[in-house]
Amino acid sequence: MLCRFVFTIFDENQLSMPSVSQKGLAMPESPIRKLAPFAEAAKKRGAKVIHLNIGQPDIKTPQIALDAVKNNTLEVLEYSRTEGSETYRKKLAAYYAKNSISVSAEDIIVTTGGSEALSFVLGSIADTGDEIIIPEPFYANYNGFATASGVKVVPVVSHIDTNFALPPIEAFEKLITQNTKAILICNPGNPTGYLYSKEELQKLAAIVKKYDLFLVADEVYREFTYEGKQHHSVLQEPAIEEHAIVIDSVSKRYSMCGARIGCLVTKNKAIIKTAIKFAQARLSPPTYAQIASEAALETPQSYFDEVKEEYEERRNLLIEELTKIEGVKVAKPQGAFYCIAELPINDADDFAQWLLEDFRLNGETVMVAPAAGFYATEGLGQNQIRIAYVLDKDHIKRAVNILKEALKSYIG
Amino acid sequence: MLCRFVFTIFDENQLSMPSVSQKGLAMPESPIRKLAPFAEAAKKRGAKVIHLNIGQPDIKTPQIALDAVKNNTLEVLEYSRTEGSETYRKKLAAYYAKNSISVSAEDIIVTTGGSEALSFVLGSIADTGDEIIIPEPFYANYNGFATASGVKVVPVVSHIDTNFALPPIEAFEKLITQNTKAILICNPGNPTGYLYSKEELQKLAAIVKKYDLFLVADEVYREFTYEGKQHHSVLQEPAIEEHAIVIDSVSKRYSMCGARIGCLVTKNKAIIKTAIKFAQARLSPPTYAQIASEAALETPQSYFDEVKEEYEERRNLLIEELTKIEGVKVAKPQGAFYCIAELPINDADDFAQWLLEDFRLNGETVMVAPAAGFYATEGLGQNQIRIAYVLDKDHIKRAVNILKEALKSYIG
Repeated sequence: MLCRFVFTIFDENQLSMPSVSQKGLAMPESPIRKLAPFAEAAKKRGAKVIHLNIGQPDIKTPQIALDAVKNNTLEVLEYSRTEGSETYRKKLAAYYAKNSISVSAEDIIVTTGGSEALSFVLGSIADTGDEIIIPEPFYANYNGFATASGVKVVPVVSHIDTNFALPPIEAFEKLITQNTKAILICNPGNPTGYLYSKEELQKLAAIVKKYDLFLVADEVYREFTYEGKQHHSVLQEPAIEEHAIVIDSVSKRYSMCGARIGCLVTKNKAIIKTAIKFAQARLSPPTYAQIASEAALETPQSYFDEVKEEYEERRNLLIEELTKIEGVKVAKPQGAFYCIAELPINDADDFAQWLLEDFRLNGETVMVAPAAGFYATEGLGQNQIRIAYVLDKDHIKRAVNILKEALKSYIG
Repeated sequence: MLCRFVFTIFDENQLSMPSVSQKGLAMPESPIRKLAPFAEAAKKRGAKVIHLNIGQPDIKTPQIALDAVKNNTLEVLEYSRTEGSETYRKKLAAYYAKNSISVSAEDIIVTTGGSEALSFVLGSIADTGDEIIIPEPFYANYNGFATASGVKVVPVVSHIDTNFALPPIEAFEKLITQNTKAILICNPGNPTGYLYSKEELQKLAAIVKKYDLFLVADEVYREFTYEGKQHHSVLQEPAIEEHAIVIDSVSKRYSMCGARIGCLVTKNKAIIKTAIKFAQARLSPPTYAQIASEAALETPQSYFDEVKEEYEERRNLLIEELTKIEGVKVAKPQGAFYCIAELPINDADDFAQWLLEDFRLNGETVMVAPAAGFYATEGLGQNQIRIAYVLDKDHIKRAVNILKEALKSYIG
């Protein structure tokens, strides 16, 4: 009794401090980064940790981009324009033209990473309580931006057995309410690697037109498609010019995640006019990174050919090795550099933590991202992990071998 | 009738497009940037426009910061840590110690500009409909971030006749409701240049303690105080360790606005834990800019001595010249590099636009920021402008002379 009383006093003392917001409490922790303390502890105890958990490629940034920053002659590191420098936006428009996407510099707002582009888009299209439909599993940080913007994510389930193809249109229609503002896709998909076909995009175009929704597409992995497959952009659908909004970023394209430069692209003038107000509040995107990003647009095609070949080889090796492990199911990615693997376990969170805390093979272990954080539906993805194939083939081979031995030991 | 009918049809077509959010419509345009098209038009017609409207200093960035970026040896431009690199945060803690502010690296989250720090703070402390009390006039973009976060700004008026000193505590108390989450100050103030005294900070400390509020202080102009006056930080008030949150930035300190590096600093662990979740969603602050910012911490004191002397001379000249103009009232700034001037006119918006469109003196004109955008109370500040004294004395002298002649002509 005494003990209880003391605790009550303590709680009341706590209550006399200002408290964090409900929104702050509701903000999800990043499933990609939340295991970081366990990885650090493992490293401190001498283990080598192979990182399959995060999309930080080991690919070199194009020299032309690095050199542009090294050779800059700025004396005052000034704000850039709120919407990004005019020369950069003009060159971006030319980049899109080369990708058969017809937009002008005025249709583009340069942002601090794709993240900020998404945040501006959510603010521009949705109010508190409004809903965005997203095929799940989806990039976990969509949850964070939705929570920060007061927007409700409504998931529509896609399945590992169909490689995470677009769910049937009826599944979308069932979820549309008067609060639905948009459908958000990631194409090619993080974490699924799924590449939407032209037919699937046309189905989405029909539905957003029918219900007056926006179709927001995160296309930051546009270049990374395999087996000669073609990427299709929502901006190529002529019927939905006013509906289509693209989120883009230089992070993966040029292996320059630390630049923090992205953009939002839309032919919808009202959205540009609205998003620019969100952009004005934060003044401008980073100047050095814009110098690097503008120069990166001159990256020769040979760079992409090599990088794509490298990723495709990594993918092939990863999928081949994973499918050899008994009980492991894997969706073969057609783009980006992630895949979702289903493991013969019940709780991938526990398994991922156990890998870092308790399992070593020749002094090494693997860090993976538990997939539950990529789902909004409670209970889904609990036996799945996301693997980023951003490391060289030697590391991938060793990592999968570790997973194989670890599963034996963990299940046993 | 026919015409009307046609318009109706057109309107209905418009309605069949998806629409922007109420939040997006409510987002304010930047009063600093909204006249930009008129300035561009003036320049295209051959006028020289002297920019007093924006806090983009002409002061050179410290060479040590520029060199650090030029000499970087990165091969892969990687994400940094979500909370900013450990070495940078440790050096930041040392910087604060030198300024008699005792914090550790764990109390700091590095952000993309002070802007992002404010956005994380609002998200962490306030929910939709919650209220933040801000002495007005205040930095206009606070309105933007509050709108984006769904937070209501409750202004408490400060007056030009008292140099914009802290309003009486009773004025704050009258405004506190159960939805009030924080008091937000900018110290030294943008746009007022007002520097809060230790006594004023103690009054604020008492009130936030009494009502369990946060005290958020934007202290990005900390170094720029005049007449030998001392800056006092809310982090120096021992009684409000759990209440005090500082917004900071390298933008003005080192004249590197284009870096987009800031931070939030607080001893309140719950706020750090919450804000880091907002930070995780956007992955990391820009890497190049962190290199520059870390190096900038080694800037010699002589740089600040020179810069401060320069700003103080500019301030003295500006105030001296402005007070010579009949009918102009000006609050003498004790810090930062802005002042509010009251003009013998009714509508500063109209005057500022007229300056750009219609007035030239020897082919030159001046761009100023109409002050109404720095007030939340409708109708206040309409005869005031904000002037940023970020240009050399020759430009300032010419600019004030232009204002003087322009006022004669405008009033006449």
